[in-house]
Amino acid sequence: MTPHLVLEHLDSLVKPPGSLGRLEDLAVRLCVIQQTLAPRTTPRRVVLFAADHGVVAEGVTAWPAEITRLMVAAIVSGGAASSVLAASTGTDLRLIDVGVAGPGLPDGPAHLCRKVRFGSRNLAQEPALTVEEFREAVAVGEEQAADAVAGGVALVAAGEMGIGNSTPASCLTALLTGSPAEAVVGPGAGAGEEVLVRKRRVVAAKVASESHYLADEPETTIASVCGLEIAAMAGFYRRASASGLTVVLDGFIATAAALVAERLWPGTARSMIAAHLSAEPGHAAALAHLGLKPALDNWGMRLGEGTGALLLMPILDAAAAIVTRMATLDRAGIRTDGP
Amino acid sequence: MTPHLVLEHLDSLVKPPGSLGRLEDLAVRLCVIQQTLAPRTTPRRVVLFAADHGVVAEGVTAWPAEITRLMVAAIVSGGAASSVLAASTGTDLRLIDVGVAGPGLPDGPAHLCRKVRFGSRNLAQEPALTVEEFREAVAVGEEQAADAVAGGVALVAAGEMGIGNSTPASCLTALLTGSPAEAVVGPGAGAGEEVLVRKRRVVAAKVASESHYLADEPETTIASVCGLEIAAMAGFYRRASASGLTVVLDGFIATAAALVAERLWPGTARSMIAAHLSAEPGHAAALAHLGLKPALDNWGMRLGEGTGALLLMPILDAAAAIVTRMATLDRAGIRTDGP
Repeated sequence: MTPHLVLEHLDSLVKPPGSLGRLEDLAVRLCVIQQTLAPRTTPRRVVLFAADHGVVAEGVTAWPAEITRLMVAAIVSGGAASSVLAASTGTDLRLIDVGVAGPGLPDGPAHLCRKVRFGSRNLAQEPALTVEEFREAVAVGEEQAADAVAGGVALVAAGEMGIGNSTPASCLTALLTGSPAEAVVGPGAGAGEEVLVRKRRVVAAKVASESHYLADEPETTIASVCGLEIAAMAGFYRRASASGLTVVLDGFIATAAALVAERLWPGTARSMIAAHLSAEPGHAAALAHLGLKPALDNWGMRLGEGTGALLLMPILDAAAAIVTRMATLDRAGIRTDGP
Repeated sequence: MTPHLVLEHLDSLVKPPGSLGRLEDLAVRLCVIQQTLAPRTTPRRVVLFAADHGVVAEGVTAWPAEITRLMVAAIVSGGAASSVLAASTGTDLRLIDVGVAGPGLPDGPAHLCRKVRFGSRNLAQEPALTVEEFREAVAVGEEQAADAVAGGVALVAAGEMGIGNSTPASCLTALLTGSPAEAVVGPGAGAGEEVLVRKRRVVAAKVASESHYLADEPETTIASVCGLEIAAMAGFYRRASASGLTVVLDGFIATAAALVAERLWPGTARSMIAAHLSAEPGHAAALAHLGLKPALDNWGMRLGEGTGALLLMPILDAAAAIVTRMATLDRAGIRTDGP
């Protein structure tokens, strides 16, 4: 199933060729990823991975670290943006605590505790994760993708909650795309100018000290700047992609995890559809590096929690419906030799 | 309910202020139109109005006029893009034949025949509609809005099917926004360069001959360049807006009808949410004239049939869900005096 074959099918339907614009691009992408003219967008699941970040000690965030724990509780109790959008779009939502500091919530139907450690170390002072910890977090993500596959899910996304995680995501984006550190650092969840100056300094210093090692020791280098939830998302993508699931990519942090996955397991991004272009300045470079074009490209979303991916879900339903349910020009009695 | 009050509410929810970007803009718009912090997006209905256009005789279209009739049949039988998107987004779809040339289909639950005449006259040669015909078509639209109100519908859109209708829509856009005719004429459903040259000439000549009369005789002038489905859409907007319904605005033709409504019944556009920016070049000027900002602003859609409005429906569900169902920062135990 090539893009050309899908376009040929779309052009046979009762509409002027290309007249549904970007909805047709999404239809093509779904068909090519799933290798069928009858793509599925349900059942679907968004898995959120949550963890804390030692680098918060450097004053690189607008919100204090304990917000991670409070937001995990809000998500699990159904009041967070992700919970509400999951319900609105008919999407199963799960949250996996892969390393929130302090005790976790008891396991439930939509929440599991799989802490690798109580947050990553302060990447400004030492490696954030050892390779072993990184691999353990990757395995948590892989386990969740395997569970989705076993549950008959057709389409997945990963999201995150982790105060401070735009700092490791910025480091990863700079390292893995080759973009200058200053160009990829943004306000995240709302950093002011003073915080932003510290964040830029931390990212630039870390990237400068690590970039030499990337080629020879990619996994160690990635682990040293990574977060547990980012590692888990990368593992989730790896296994989901290898198992033939369609992966909807959320915002800046989710895409940093995709950069990790594509670097360590090339080809992972071929299963991906980019939901949106985040307000975070490094996102465009990361998506371009993966060869992905965001569907919603100036919506100014910057919340995380899989919210951008969730918003795209009903649009993907519409794209799939166009391909599978529209009548052909032929059947409508419209001659295709003109105009 | 002012935008400021809605924003205050949105900023009290468990997310960084503004972090849902354009979804928050839509939430504000819904709340302000409906004057509530609990906006409704269902039940909803899209009403398509279909008619033919005598101006097709001038060679201004890519497709022959009989396509209107065939597409009406495709819509009613459920195979058109609008039918499929209505089903995918949980939207009631109706089609009203307000002036398709030739005999109409028998009335059905989702289809009514309310022909004012068998298509408008050739606007290049004579007035397309008399004022009486224009008013009759407006009344057909008003009747449909009244029916939606009676049916408890909260949110509506109007769409259209009518080969040739981007020519009257271009005339209306130029006349009512003051934009130059050349700037508002585009390929519509797929006109090539030769057709486009003729279309530009027809629109420029008509606008030049009518523009003097607009100030003194707006209704006569509008009728002389209008189409029956465009008049019906204008009437639909008028009554829907006056009855407190939220109106989702589709593409170029639908917006030309909104220009008509706003000109004749000022304030109508205050109930409107613009779904998308069409690929048609005159659409941006029309939306700007109405003070509306399109939600999907570079999706390149140009099909009509209400498809752009339909695609926005689940996004509006998400916007309403955010406002009504998210927990507050306070309730989540997050102090609002920081960061």
